[in-house]
Parts: sequence; C-alpha cells; structure tokens
Amino acid sequence: MRTQWIDERIVYDGSQLRSHWILSRCGIAGDALVAFRGPCAVADAEIADLADLDGPGIAADDMLHFVWESFAHPDLLLAVHRQRLLSAQAAELLRELAPAAVVRRDGDDLWVGRGKLSISIATVTPVSSLIHFAVNATPGGAPVAVATLAELLVEPRGFATALLARAAAEQDSLAVARGKVRPKGEWR
Amino acid sequence: MRTQWIDERIVYDGSQLRSHWILSRCGIAGDALVAFRGPCAVADAEIADLADLDGPGIAADDMLHFVWESFAHPDLLLAVHRQRLLSAQAAELLRELAPAAVVRRDGDDLWVGRGKLSISIATVTPVSSLIHFAVNATPGGAPVAVATLAELLVEPRGFATALLARAAAEQDSLAVARGKVRPKGEWR
Amino acid sequence: MRTQWIDERIVYDGSQLRSHWILSRCGIAGDALVAFRGPCAVADAEIADLADLDGPGIAADDMLHFVWESFAHPDLLLAVHRQRLLSAQAAELLRELAPAAVVRRDGDDLWVGRGKLSISIATVTPVSSLIHFAVNATPGGAPVAVATLAELLVEPRGFATALLARAAAEQDSLAVARGKVRPKGEWR
Amino acid sequence: MRTQWIDERIVYDGSQLRSHWILSRCGIAGDALVAFRGPCAVADAEIADLADLDGPGIAADDMLHFVWESFAHPDLLLAVHRQRLLSAQAAELLRELAPAAVVRRDGDDLWVGRGKLSISIATVTPVSSLIHFAVNATPGGAPVAVATLAELLVEPRGFATALLARAAAEQDSLAVARGKVRPKGEWR
Amino acid sequence: MRTQWIDERIVYDGSQLRSHWILSRCGIAGDALVAFRGPCAVADAEIADLADLDGPGIAADDMLHFVWESFAHPDLLLAVHRQRLLSAQAAELLRELAPAAVVRRDGDDLWVGRGKLSISIATVTPVSSLIHFAVNATPGGAPVAVATLAELLVEPRGFATALLARAAAEQDSLAVARGKVRPKGEWR
Amino acid sequence: MRTQWIDERIVYDGSQLRSHWILSRCGIAGDALVAFRGPCAVADAEIADLADLDGPGIAADDMLHFVWESFAHPDLLLAVHRQRLLSAQAAELLRELAPAAVVRRDGDDLWVGRGKLSISIATVTPVSSLIHFAVNATPGGAPVAVATLAELLVEPRGFATALLARAAAEQDSLAVARGKVRPKGEWR
Repeated sequence: MRTQWIDERIVYDGSQLRSHWILSRCGIAGDALVAFRGPCAVADAEIADLADLDGPGIAADDMLHFVWESFAHPDLLLAVHRQRLLSAQAAELLRELAPAAVVRRDGDDLWVGRGKLSISIATVTPVSSLIHFAVNATPGGAPVAVATLAELLVEPRGFATALLARAAAEQDSLAVARGKVRPKGEWR
Repeated sequence: MRTQWIDERIVYDGSQLRSHWILSRCGIAGDALVAFRGPCAVADAEIADLADLDGPGIAADDMLHFVWESFAHPDLLLAVHRQRLLSAQAAELLRELAPAAVVRRDGDDLWVGRGKLSISIATVTPVSSLIHFAVNATPGGAPVAVATLAELLVEPRGFATALLARAAAEQDSLAVARGKVRPKGEWR
Repeated sequence: MRTQWIDERIVYDGSQLRSHWILSRCGIAGDALVAFRGPCAVADAEIADLADLDGPGIAADDMLHFVWESFAHPDLLLAVHRQRLLSAQAAELLRELAPAAVVRRDGDDLWVGRGKLSISIATVTPVSSLIHFAVNATPGGAPVAVATLAELLVEPRGFATALLARAAAEQDSLAVARGKVRPKGEWR
Repeated sequence: MRTQWIDERIVYDGSQLRSHWILSRCGIAGDALVAFRGPCAVADAEIADLADLDGPGIAADDMLHFVWESFAHPDLLLAVHRQRLLSAQAAELLRELAPAAVVRRDGDDLWVGRGKLSISIATVTPVSSLIHFAVNATPGGAPVAVATLAELLVEPRGFATALLARAAAEQDSLAVARGKVRPKGEWR
Repeated sequence: MRTQWIDERIVYDGSQLRSHWILSRCGIAGDALVAFRGPCAVADAEIADLADLDGPGIAADDMLHFVWESFAHPDLLLAVHRQRLLSAQAAELLRELAPAAVVRRDGDDLWVGRGKLSISIATVTPVSSLIHFAVNATPGGAPVAVATLAELLVEPRGFATALLARAAAEQDSLAVARGKVRPKGEWR
Repeated sequence: MRTQWIDERIVYDGSQLRSHWILSRCGIAGDALVAFRGPCAVADAEIADLADLDGPGIAADDMLHFVWESFAHPDLLLAVHRQRLLSAQAAELLRELAPAAVVRRDGDDLWVGRGKLSISIATVTPVSSLIHFAVNATPGGAPVAVATLAELLVEPRGFATALLARAAAEQDSLAVARGKVRPKGEWR
C-alpha cells in the first residue's frame, strides 16, 4: 500500500469516494491511502451510509480527510475491519499527542466527551473497497456537536502524516504476520 | 458469534488452539469466543508463530486466555485484522479501567512501559480461523519482563467478561455496518 | 438470518428485488428473508432473468412473495444453490399440507400437473445476493397456465410463515453442520 | 461434473472420503460424483462428523454409496448446501419411484416413518470439498432402526444411476442459471 | 468453457465487452470464448482501461477479436492472469505459423518490431469477468504504428480457430492440473 | 513479491516445496520467489503431482530451481495460472537468449525437440500456494530424455536472475493492470 499527503485544499463532497479517484488525482495505480485537508459537504447522491440519508447531513468547514482504496482486498467485511482498525489507530495516536484528552472510539467514530471528532464510511465498488475517514481540524459548519484537533492542540498535518505512516506500517506488519504462522490441526 | 466465560482453571498449552476445542469444551458448534484463567506453557509442537520457535518460550503462571474460532470467516488475513482489533479493544478497555496507566499497542501486543502485558497469535485450520489472546493476570513464570493486570489494579474476571462482551458487540456492529452501505461507482 | 412476515399487501414489481429494500421496509440491517402477499407485475427494466425478457411477462393477481437478501454470502453460485433448496423446501412443505397433491420441482420452479405454481430468480447486487420466490395464492392475471395454493386447499399465510421458519432453521442447521466436521486428508 | 457408476462391490470404511480417491479408483481428475454398492463400516479415525464420534457407530450390511469430490468449489458452506440439495433430490426421486411411501428429509437425513433411510456427511480437504451420501439398500447390520430401498420396492442400481443423472443435471442447470441473470441495483 | 467462431463481420465498438453479450449473440449461457473479424472503433464511454482514455484512441479497420466471459471465475486478478496467458499463447501460435518473425509479448500486448500487433483489456462486471483480445489482420485505420497478420503471412480465420482451440485446451488442462495434486505441509 | 538468488548449491528433494521454507532459508516473511542451482531427487513422499507417483521418478544431476510461495493468493486455480505464465516467460526468455533454438511450451513443461527441458508443479498448503519450476542446466541423472541450458548455450545463473526479474515485473504489472480498469455493465 502506498500513502501520500496532498498539499492542495480539496472540498470533500463524496465524489472522491469513487473508484480510481486516487489514480486520477495522484497517479497511483493500486492500493493506496491518501490524505488532504479541506471542507466537507457530502451531496445526498454520494452518501454511502443509508443511516445518514435521513440524518442532519454530513458537513464541516475544516477537516482532515483520508481516502483508502484497495483493489487487492475488495471484500466489504475486511474493509469494515480495516476501517475500525484505522479508527483505533487514530485514537491511539491522539492519546500520544494529547495525553490529557480522553478520546473514545465507538465503532468507527471517535468522540471527545460529547463532541464527535470524526466521521467514517467503508464501502465497495465493482473493482475495489473504499474507506473515508475524516477528523475535524477546526470548528465550524457541522450540523452536530463536534470535537476538533484544535481543542486538543494537535497540529493537523503532523497528525495526518503520522496516521498515514502508522496505517501503512500496520498493513505491512499484518502481511508479515500472515506469512510466518503455522496452521493448526484438529482437537480430537 | 457466541461468547462464554469458563469458570474452571485450564492450563493453556497450545493444544486449545485447535479446531473444535471450543465445541468439545463448551458444546458450541459455530463461531465462538471463550475465555478462562490459568497458567500458560506452550509446547514447541503447538507453537504457531514461527518467530517464537527459537525464542525464550511462551509461559506464565497466571493469565487470562481468550480463544476465538470462526468457521464463517476462515480467511487468515481477516483473522489477523480481527486479532489486531481485539488487541486494540483490550487496550481501550484497560484505559477505562485503569486511566492512570499508559497501555501501548504494538501490532497484536500490549505493553505497559517495558513490561509485555499480552501475547497473541492468529492462524488457520483446514476448516476455520483461530485466535489466541492472553493477558497476564499476576506476575510469575514468564521468560521476559511482563506487566500484569494486578499492577494495574484491574480485576481479571471482570476484565475478561467485559472484553468478551465488547468483542461480540463489535462483531455485531460490523455485520450491521456491512448491511447498510450503498456501493459507489467510478470517478470518470 | 432474520425472518419477517409483512402484513401489508404489496405489489411486487421487481423493484423490491433491490439492495436494502428489506432494510428500508422492515428496518433489518443484515441477512433477512421476508414474505408478503400481493399482486405481481414485473417491469421489463426490473427483470433479472434474461430468459424472461422475451417471454410472456411475469404477472399474477395474487401471490405469496419471499424476498431474501444476504450480505454475508453474496456469491451467486451459493445463492442459486440456496434458491433451489428453498424451492425444495416449499415442495416438501406442500406435500405435508396437501398430501394428495403431486408437487414437482424442476430447477427452481414448482409444478402441479401442467400448472406452474411458482416463479423464482436469484441474482446479485454489488453488496449482496438476492432471491425472489413467489407462489400463486389464488388464480388470475397470469400469462401462463398456473396452479395455486387455493386449489391445493393450503392457507397462504400459514404456508408463508411455515416456510420462513423452515428456511431459517435450515440455515441454522447448515451453520452448525459446518462447525462440527473434521477435515479429511489424502487417499495416498 | 462427471458421474460414474462403479459395478464392483466396495466396502465403504470412510477412507473413500479422501482427496483423489475418485481419481485413483476411476481415473477422473476433476469434479466427479460416483456411486457403488457395498457394506458400510466407518472406522473412528475416518469419521468426519464429530457428533458421530460418541454415537452408536456408522455401519450397515448393504448400502448404495455416493461420493462427490469438487475441486472447483472447495468451500464448505457451498458443500453443505449441495449435500442438502442432493438429499432433497433423493427424496424427490423416491417419491416418484415409490409414490405410496412417505419419505421425509430432515437436514441431510432421509426418514421413512421412524426408520433412518440414509446417512451423509460433507467436509473438506486442503484441495477440495467432499460429500458422502448413502442409502440403505437391504436391512441388516445397522446400530439404529433403519428404512431400506427394499421395503420401498425400489431397485438400487436404477435408483443410483437416476440420482447420478439428476445431480449432474442440477449442477448443469445451476451453472446455466448463474450465466443468464442480470445484477440488480440499489433500492434508494 | 465453450468456444465459437462467428462468421459474420462485427464492428467491435466496446459494447461487446459487456455481460451476456455472448449469450445474446451466440446463445451460450456460461463461460465462453468467441471470436470474429471486423473493424475496431471503441467509443470513449466503453473504454475500460483508464490509461487509454486520454490516449490516441482504439481503432483499426480489420482485426480478429476474441471476447471471453467467465461467470465461474469472476475474480479480476485471475482474469488478468488469463489475459496474459492468452497473449502468450497467441505469440506461441504465431511463432509456429510464422517461424521467421520475432513476436514479442510485453504484458498483454504483442509486438513485431516497433509495430503493435494486438490490443487487450480485462475487466469485470457484477456477475463475471471479461477479456477482449484483438489482433490486427490487415493494415489501416490505427492511430499508432501496427503490425498485422498479413505481413506475417498468417491466415486470420485459421489463426483464430487455432487460438480458440488452444485456449480451451489450456483451460481444460488447468482444471486437470488442479484435480491431481497433493497438498504440501510445513517446513518445520 | 520479493525475489532472491541463493548462491549456495542445494539438493532439491521436494521438502523445499513446503510452507515457510523460503522464510526459514532466506528470512523473507511473505510472498517470494527464490532460485538456486543443485541436483534434483524428489522423494516419493514429497511428490505433489499424483501423475508422477507411478512414473520414472523425478531426478537430475544439475538443475536451476525456482520456488515460489504466495500467502496473499493461496488459491490453487490462480497458482496453476501463474505456473503456466512462469513457464511461458521462461520460454520467451530462452527465445531471446538462444534465438536459433525452438523451445516449445506444453502446459507447464518446456521442450526442445524431444528433450524435456523443465519440470514443474503447483500446489497448496493450508496457508499458501507453492510453485516449483526447474530447468536442466547440464545433462545427467534424469530418467527421461532431457534438453539442457548447456546445449542451448545459455548461462544458468544469468538465466535465473533474468527470470526472477521478469516474473516479479509481470506480477507488478498485473497489480497495476488490476488497479486501472473500469468495470463494465450489462448488454441489454
């Protein structure tokens, strides 16, 4: 899996969670996780989670966005496991960067107190699996009570590049783990 | 997935990480995660991780053991993802039960300072995937420096039943997440 | 797998054989089999079986409809096996409810003499597999010679709830069967 | 899938339910379903169903045996579906050959009244899935109350070759069904 | 897998690389590889390879086209392996038919000197995998420098039917190879 | 996939075609293709191809051996496709290195006239797929008529490292091909 930080500000409107957007934007053909900063305003037609369709909307003025496309592992069940693990890693990283804060993971969501720190969805295309994970950088524009990296005093770009590196390292170590284990047999 | 706490003390020697051990011990046919307390002394022939074969040995006098067998999802890559997520959940739970402690996850291992708190392996049989995850309850008998639930002032059985419940809830919510997401299409 | 009988009369026009229709209609996120009573009039654009596209049309005034969506097992080959098994179960049930009748299964179709008792299709979406199976309740509106539950003196709703229960029990027992079998080795 | 009737009498001791036994016996490399007549006496070491291990034993003096090995579809869940469908087909065939008899299918077992007519198991090897299905031809040698083809006045070899043909035809029609169905989309 | 040569001249515009085109054109439901002769002019909307979208276009006046649809093996990674093997087979066949020529395979493309002899793409639909492979028969109409069967003095239809036969024979022998191999175990 | 040339002479006796042999020998955990030079003398217990069990034996005094283990793609059907592609690549490479020779591929075997140039097998373990491919370097010790690199005037180590590089490049380009293709839809 390759990773890339995109310097340019991009408005995330849900159309980035489409097959080959990373290829088109970054020129990477194959599994990749990229990150960028920008507002969030997801059009209804691009909403993947049916539970969000009748909700308050998905929007915020300033978020860190992570988009992950995998062609090697297009299975949705694996994708939702990866999504949870990415959320867990983000929480772990925040605990190191902001030891005083209490960051709680609930499924694929992160919370700080009653403020929702992140949004996320995992889905599939006919050729790949896709994950969007985004963390509020600064307040403003959200239809619900949010927490932000700003109030945790965490610098957004440093957080993003650290999470890219950890997610890639976790995937590498998962591949190694798969490659060095003996199978087991029958109990009786 | 069904879960069960086994009251009886069982010596974990690695043979429990075999297909249908849970069926034989608990009468559950199908995906299940069970936990029990007991010493750990894994025979070489039962060691699954090749990296451990030439190591200091896998042993401790008093651990909480979790054994997870899945017939519905026998794929090893999914199993190692699940294993990492279970480790992450254990760390999250410990942070709630022992807020002052700093529990660090490194792959599938948990650490408290320089003490190794847990051991874990994921592997497959011809019909299932298997995970063993174990946490030191009290000190003694380990060939390396360890941390224990005792020094975190965490009561073992309460920890075990809470982790069983969380792991089951996470699997349920993963299944729900898979069942309510719309696929996405092509970027251009 | 969850099952549900829907009391309301619904016109089956083929659009019910779409991903998340059960979620939208019944609030169930995940594998489910539901049944309802109503007319059948499938629009060409909703016809899944290409062999039906140039046929006499798919219509009837009064049918029992079963819709099954599976996210856990989206594979089409498994879905067509399940579809056949559901047809076989329906025939078995009818033989108990109407012992004098001769119900014959031919692939996924049930026949009573020269009358076609049922229609069925299995297909996939990008996130799931889908099965539609429907049995004529009373005569009228079909473009071909049909048989009906009425002429077999079988009460429709009782038949439907019994078939829902049997299909669910069969899936449960298949999962148990998978969880208690030892693998075999090589002949020489 | 190829099918073959083996004229020679063979003692089924469970070792036939091993990978490449059909290749070795019949020279068929690939998916095949074969049948033969002979006694049944399964050694404990060859018993695949753990539920049978502590049972009364698996034995009978005169049975029709069907052995099915599939390399193309080694998945165990598909294999147990196929096994059920084969049982259902056997029941359907018997209803045609012995219309007065009441043959009941319960999972993978066939019953006539309180007599067990058949035994069956599905399992996997590292390269294939395997099904054994056997029907009592004449009484004698069984540790439980049985029913037999003899009491149904069904001629064994004719039954066997008819079932071989039907199972092959069902597999062919399943492949055709998979090849002519349009996928469906999203409900909303 | 069934194969068929289609005598009629067909303009390949990319819409033939769609699910069930072979079923519709040839009446074959299931895995099939068919071939025909005709011009090539692929509309942008039908282009599958994103690398071609901004290229010089996909066109030629006279090509041999091969279209392969597989429902049994819809996986894209397997499809691209098959595509490479088909290209390799085409090159092997040309070396026999035109021993003096130097035909070079580069990925899925064949070259004679600096002339591009073939084009190819492999992709998936929601129910199948698809391969298009085409070889220039005579010059004209291409936006790049091409090589042709004409300059190799190879007769197109004979080449096509020979390649159909070889691809089918290779698939048969692959199935046999899968059906006669013993699994191996662990190194230590 | 990583590749490695092993300088040391190794007697290939079939035990190298076991899971984690490459890990144990080269320290690579994960997909890898390695090559070495040495005699070949496969013990019956290590023979994977059942067709070879009653044959003249698998032996030669001096061969180039390639061993490929894949954990990411353990499917046997994919493995036999890869095996054929590796054979095709070896033949392509030989045509470049020895343009005057006529090297013919028949399935996974290479021939020069009536001399068999290579041997090969693909199989699976419970955690991986495995391929062995070997080419005669110099004559001697074989139970059948062979061809050798020596008579083609091809230097063994150069051939081996070139084939390692080509196989790795082919796998890379297959992954890229999978990552840049749009799915296609329905014909009607």
